[in-house]
Amino acid sequence: MSKPLILVSNDDGIDSLGIRKLVGVMQRLGEVVVVAPDSPQSGMGHAITVGDTLRLIESDIFPGVEAYKCSGTPADCVKLGKHHVLKDRNIDLVVSGVNHGSNTSISVLYSGTMSAAIEGAIEGTPAIGYSLCDFNTKADMSHIDEYVEKIASEALIKGLPKATALNVNIPHKQNESIRGIKVCRQANARWEEDFDQRLDPNGRDYFWMRGNFVNHDKGEDNDEWAIANNFVSIVPCQFDLTAHHAITRLNDEWDF
Amino acid sequence: MSKPLILVSNDDGIDSLGIRKLVGVMQRLGEVVVVAPDSPQSGMGHAITVGDTLRLIESDIFPGVEAYKCSGTPADCVKLGKHHVLKDRNIDLVVSGVNHGSNTSISVLYSGTMSAAIEGAIEGTPAIGYSLCDFNTKADMSHIDEYVEKIASEALIKGLPKATALNVNIPHKQNESIRGIKVCRQANARWEEDFDQRLDPNGRDYFWMRGNFVNHDKGEDNDEWAIANNFVSIVPCQFDLTAHHAITRLNDEWDF
Repeated sequence: MSKPLILVSNDDGIDSLGIRKLVGVMQRLGEVVVVAPDSPQSGMGHAITVGDTLRLIESDIFPGVEAYKCSGTPADCVKLGKHHVLKDRNIDLVVSGVNHGSNTSISVLYSGTMSAAIEGAIEGTPAIGYSLCDFNTKADMSHIDEYVEKIASEALIKGLPKATALNVNIPHKQNESIRGIKVCRQANARWEEDFDQRLDPNGRDYFWMRGNFVNHDKGEDNDEWAIANNFVSIVPCQFDLTAHHAITRLNDEWDF
Repeated sequence: MSKPLILVSNDDGIDSLGIRKLVGVMQRLGEVVVVAPDSPQSGMGHAITVGDTLRLIESDIFPGVEAYKCSGTPADCVKLGKHHVLKDRNIDLVVSGVNHGSNTSISVLYSGTMSAAIEGAIEGTPAIGYSLCDFNTKADMSHIDEYVEKIASEALIKGLPKATALNVNIPHKQNESIRGIKVCRQANARWEEDFDQRLDPNGRDYFWMRGNFVNHDKGEDNDEWAIANNFVSIVPCQFDLTAHHAITRLNDEWDF
């Protein structure tokens, strides 16, 4: 039997520590091909490049691994990987990350890491986005290998529910070992932004966005709870955004 | 009673025909404030500006309407509108569009128009994204006023189901009148990309993304069916991406 084919991407850029970690672990499981952004793409959500060109340049950054850096977004990278680089081959798994920073709760919407994974799911391929809950670009990732490998391995062996991608968040390195893995729902939390208004040297206004993450969720079945209690969280995410319960309500209450 | 306060944004940029149409209709319903991108942002999905500054400049493009053009994404515009421009006021409705081009089915994920609306919903405000199924920047919008107004008016009077934003698509102008409004689910369709590979004047590769929209959905309760049959489609969209059915399956089948 041939080795599984694994497409790796991320949003922090091809030279980040997180993707090097991910490539290393995936090499134990199969043949790895990397298509990743040539520069950081954090916060890009599910952006794609429309009305502009894309560049794709071979990279020798990972010894012995076929790799390309792309001028586009994480979603662009997966599309180029699927429809150009690996055009005539069957991809067994798309993985993205390891992101430097949490993508729990509502952050999934803004996450380039998860948009790469969701793009994989749209293409019908099992897909996983990994994030470490530590924004430090030099974060200690010595504790994550077994979890990254275990979850990818299960996905390769058992597949994933149709039309879903996994949002995996891993606690930052602590003295206590990770307590295990929890399958969760997305926590009901959000960012409360404010804007830091400044003057540039020409006397014109500009703004920095700042956000405070506020958790309104008292449950113990969500990803915020899991991370706060030193579990790895897995949220299965879908790309059908339909709020089915709302269809009935709109039909009943609205007067068209 | 004071007039409702309506925040307007879009993704085609503040000078597009679609936002001018939307501002005109919304002025019949309430006090309008515009915060919109200073340049086209199509395909930006739910991108936000992280690690860079934002500009916000007052615009007199809409006579008698407070308006600002922003250097950021559609989601940035709504955040700046909510937390800076209208910081101490209660927003009654966020509307986005009218987009030049369809945002049915899977396109909702890539849509800057819908990311602005979803950002409104995350903030707890009723929110609607409008798209016209005609990519022409000079598209005939003479047939859309009553539908744009009717749906916004219902949202202002009756509110929206919690944590949802409406994805409204309107058929392009045809000889036959629009047949009505259908509340729908998101169609199971997707883009099948291929890449047009070219050489630049320096002999280096570059790519244009091309996509064919392929509809796999045979149902008559989805947005693609509605548009194909000359109905306005409304899909209520949620920002909780949890695939709840998959949680049980993963817990049952996977071996942690």
